[in-house]
Amino acid sequence: MPVIPEMIAAVHAYVAAFEAGDAAAAAALFAEDATVEDPIGSPLHRGREAIQAFYAQSMATGAKLKLEGPIRTAGDYAVFPFSVNLTLAAGPAQIDVIDSFKFNDAGEVAEMRAFWGPSNMHGF
Amino acid sequence: MPVIPEMIAAVHAYVAAFEAGDAAAAAALFAEDATVEDPIGSPLHRGREAIQAFYAQSMATGAKLKLEGPIRTAGDYAVFPFSVNLTLAAGPAQIDVIDSFKFNDAGEVAEMRAFWGPSNMHGF
Repeated sequence: MPVIPEMIAAVHAYVAAFEAGDAAAAAALFAEDATVEDPIGSPLHRGREAIQAFYAQSMATGAKLKLEGPIRTAGDYAVFPFSVNLTLAAGPAQIDVIDSFKFNDAGEVAEMRAFWGPSNMHGF
Repeated sequence: MPVIPEMIAAVHAYVAAFEAGDAAAAAALFAEDATVEDPIGSPLHRGREAIQAFYAQSMATGAKLKLEGPIRTAGDYAVFPFSVNLTLAAGPAQIDVIDSFKFNDAGEVAEMRAFWGPSNMHGF
């Protein structure tokens, strides 16, 4: 079972990776065979290499993450509310998101699911 | 697929059911064969009758819910951050929680999962 401080540190490292625009640092938080579903219902990104490519693309938009409340930890999950903040030609835009990270025993993220949809997009 | 306004209305009805201390109103949001896992890792409550009994017990503590940010909707999920607020003999206590509601095509909650743990309990 992953320990709570490790899970919380991984979430902060994820936010910091976006701040730095460092897709490799984000991908390094994931297990070799991890899956990312972002948003829910879209095709899975499978494996650390595909996950890094996905984050490189996300970060290329200049998106920054801001935690919007406490990280909840439960069993092998960390679940956290945040906003994705972008600057578009028309001005600032925001997406309200909740991510769930499910960890393996090595403290790596084995499954990430991102919960957001059209009702959570502002300024687009 | 459930529609977004229905899912959002169900979350508000859930909060209102706690406000009113009405376990039947909370249970009525769930499918007949729904499951509730609260918190993650604890035994499932299965079926509307067991779910109503679970909420009756929760509400007997006087717990009230307060949304702590926007409801995220994604596919057939509504996921939302909130606090559970209690008054103990020693004073106020709070638990920071994120619930996920997965809806069926009839707009009923088929699966509820509550993400919170020791790191999210304050004043106990």
